[in-house]
Amino acid sequence: MKLCERLLVEAAGTAWLVFVGCASTALNAGALEQGWNVFEMAAAFGLAQAVAAYACGRTSSAHFNPAVTIGYVIAGRFRTRDVAPYIVAQNVGALVGAALLAAVASGRSGFAFAISDFGSNGYGGHSPCEFAPAAVFAVELMMTFAFALLHLVMSASPQRRGAAPAALGACLAAAYLVAIPVSNGGMNPARSTGPALFVGDWALDQLWLFWAAPMLGGIAAGFFLRIVPRCRG
Amino acid sequence: MKLCERLLVEAAGTAWLVFVGCASTALNAGALEQGWNVFEMAAAFGLAQAVAAYACGRTSSAHFNPAVTIGYVIAGRFRTRDVAPYIVAQNVGALVGAALLAAVASGRSGFAFAISDFGSNGYGGHSPCEFAPAAVFAVELMMTFAFALLHLVMSASPQRRGAAPAALGACLAAAYLVAIPVSNGGMNPARSTGPALFVGDWALDQLWLFWAAPMLGGIAAGFFLRIVPRCRG
Amino acid sequence: MKLCERLLVEAAGTAWLVFVGCASTALNAGALEQGWNVFEMAAAFGLAQAVAAYACGRTSSAHFNPAVTIGYVIAGRFRTRDVAPYIVAQNVGALVGAALLAAVASGRSGFAFAISDFGSNGYGGHSPCEFAPAAVFAVELMMTFAFALLHLVMSASPQRRGAAPAALGACLAAAYLVAIPVSNGGMNPARSTGPALFVGDWALDQLWLFWAAPMLGGIAAGFFLRIVPRCRG
Amino acid sequence: MKLCERLLVEAAGTAWLVFVGCASTALNAGALEQGWNVFEMAAAFGLAQAVAAYACGRTSSAHFNPAVTIGYVIAGRFRTRDVAPYIVAQNVGALVGAALLAAVASGRSGFAFAISDFGSNGYGGHSPCEFAPAAVFAVELMMTFAFALLHLVMSASPQRRGAAPAALGACLAAAYLVAIPVSNGGMNPARSTGPALFVGDWALDQLWLFWAAPMLGGIAAGFFLRIVPRCRG
Repeated sequence: MKLCERLLVEAAGTAWLVFVGCASTALNAGALEQGWNVFEMAAAFGLAQAVAAYACGRTSSAHFNPAVTIGYVIAGRFRTRDVAPYIVAQNVGALVGAALLAAVASGRSGFAFAISDFGSNGYGGHSPCEFAPAAVFAVELMMTFAFALLHLVMSASPQRRGAAPAALGACLAAAYLVAIPVSNGGMNPARSTGPALFVGDWALDQLWLFWAAPMLGGIAAGFFLRIVPRCRG
Repeated sequence: MKLCERLLVEAAGTAWLVFVGCASTALNAGALEQGWNVFEMAAAFGLAQAVAAYACGRTSSAHFNPAVTIGYVIAGRFRTRDVAPYIVAQNVGALVGAALLAAVASGRSGFAFAISDFGSNGYGGHSPCEFAPAAVFAVELMMTFAFALLHLVMSASPQRRGAAPAALGACLAAAYLVAIPVSNGGMNPARSTGPALFVGDWALDQLWLFWAAPMLGGIAAGFFLRIVPRCRG
Repeated sequence: MKLCERLLVEAAGTAWLVFVGCASTALNAGALEQGWNVFEMAAAFGLAQAVAAYACGRTSSAHFNPAVTIGYVIAGRFRTRDVAPYIVAQNVGALVGAALLAAVASGRSGFAFAISDFGSNGYGGHSPCEFAPAAVFAVELMMTFAFALLHLVMSASPQRRGAAPAALGACLAAAYLVAIPVSNGGMNPARSTGPALFVGDWALDQLWLFWAAPMLGGIAAGFFLRIVPRCRG
Repeated sequence: MKLCERLLVEAAGTAWLVFVGCASTALNAGALEQGWNVFEMAAAFGLAQAVAAYACGRTSSAHFNPAVTIGYVIAGRFRTRDVAPYIVAQNVGALVGAALLAAVASGRSGFAFAISDFGSNGYGGHSPCEFAPAAVFAVELMMTFAFALLHLVMSASPQRRGAAPAALGACLAAAYLVAIPVSNGGMNPARSTGPALFVGDWALDQLWLFWAAPMLGGIAAGFFLRIVPRCRG
């Protein structure tokens, strides 16, 4: 596939992931009132990830996540010159997804932005269960490490590729069951950036963490696979 | 398979989808009292879709949805002369499913039709979270576009067909997690028509949107695959 | 495999299904207090069905359900002389599962049998949402028809057998999302008989319906496949 | 693979399982307030198990559980001299997972250890629904027997190995739906030991049961497969 097509796929998949995952909470007034939507949001992100991976079929070119892309580069399985276009495409996609969500959400009477309303990520007073920055950083780093490692392992051999969409969807859902109460579920800098641009203010102030921690997690996953060569093949 | 057999399969699958999906809410008094049934209804529609696709096995002839059928025609992968019989069969099936549901629901003491009771779709005051018509239209169009596109992509190559039932079920569940609070979950004109005929009144007045938006979504998916030929094979 | 081994598998699988499915509600005091356990019970039955089908591997000899066995006989794919031993083994297994559950449940302080406590099935005043007998009969018959039909279709060709455990688990979960509020989820005479023997009283009085409706559903599925020969292969 | 690598995989997988499974409850203040997290915790353990099994790929060397390891030894499919290193690695992994969880959990204001907060297992007054020791013992033994048996059966033939991760994840989720209200979900001595070391006190006093019952279950599964040779191949 040509680069322009792959970038279109990356942008479209990230837009789908951000829209479906965040909308499962942002559009559900009942969930917001009850303050109890962890499982539904985790399921929406996990299912959306699996669907996007099924649709694109070749998982190695279906990152939808700058932390995954950086992991592939570090592991030596992605061209360095494609990194910047990929990350731009993922962020453009996330922005489109968040813009569509903002447009739809504005069609609800009594509409107001709040952290869990719009699926944006935060720490301290903006963490759903008020976790300190260090705890949020640790969870984001560890969960992204695991997700990026699984992505690399599942795409390393043809036999595993068939199960990759289900495995990645299951992994994202499991990690979000952990991360939603902590950070509202990030593990993907593009997914965090999209909604943050619409929430603005504190969400932009805190956005650095949701780039730094997942990118470190992706880099760690890439290095891990360089050091453990047996797991590559 | 002969056309009459395929029409029987379309009608039966659509009846199953409408009955199971809508019954998961309509028959559950506890859910109606708590006003909190989004995940169960999304799971019921997603599981019912996957089961119907597994049972029929050849996904290209298991649409259960006029918007999917129109998408196949536009993409040049379905005979134009079969469109009308398919859409009639799907609507007959949905009507049968809704009739069976009405018959069962009448066996509950304290029975009364209400929007979420019967799984019918609405906008404005009849949207579960009171979304304006434009927002409902946008969600229905976008989610149907994604579902119809996945349907076309998963049936385009033999290797993908094995995973199609799971992928389509996951996609419908994810899309319904988004759409239930907005429109009570449509994305399928036949599924909307069945219950609307039993609810009558406002449900029939608003039915046009649940034909227009999904059909536009299906048409857009078909055109998308004509323009991006690479994704066909 | 010899008949005695197959009967052991049938009994063990039915015991597993009854124990896990009913225990998911019967042992959960929190669920009973909230009166809101439909999704968990449906998930437990669906997952237990999928696991049992995976473990046994050859789905045609993993019925765990008299209504499925009778469906195979009517469809001409099961030896008539094995029917009685199979149905006895399934009921013995269900009795063992229910006995284990009763033993475990008696280890909870404040233990008392109630309909939803023990997973037994009922109609009228003993239906979770107080559905009349005719509505319960219709739901049990229709859902068992669908489940038995899927069982027959998925085991008819080698290509479909690999997906059978997932499909059957998904179907049982979807059908239980519909049936739990109506009848507390039966669709399997052995599964209904096991708990009924421990609840006694009204559960035994109403047990006839949970044999008659599912068996008719299974018989209908078998006849359907005789009439539509194309679906057999 | 060399033993040191396999031990690393065992430790990493067990750490992942303990962290994700227990964190799904321990970090969610909303769940703790409502006292209603059975499904989320069961889903987190089941998804984490499936993901770990997918990532490792060769399920026979992905036990993550001393009771499974002992089952393989008894069944004659694991070298006796590797048992001790495996069980040590699993416990080290569980300890690492619990330590990471304790570190993250300490970043929440108003932090306090409680049984369901930290995912530790207990009986009597420390059972979520106050089950007596004998009932907890029986559930732990039976559910571990089923899980270990499935593990042995799914890895016995190449055709079944592809479905093993999904089947094992489904089995763990189903068994946890039963076990969480009873014992907070153990079925794995390493998983019980990790959190118990951080909770201390009663959790250490009661830890013997969460070694004895699962190990007996694993041993019983191994013997079962020696006696029923047909199920091996």
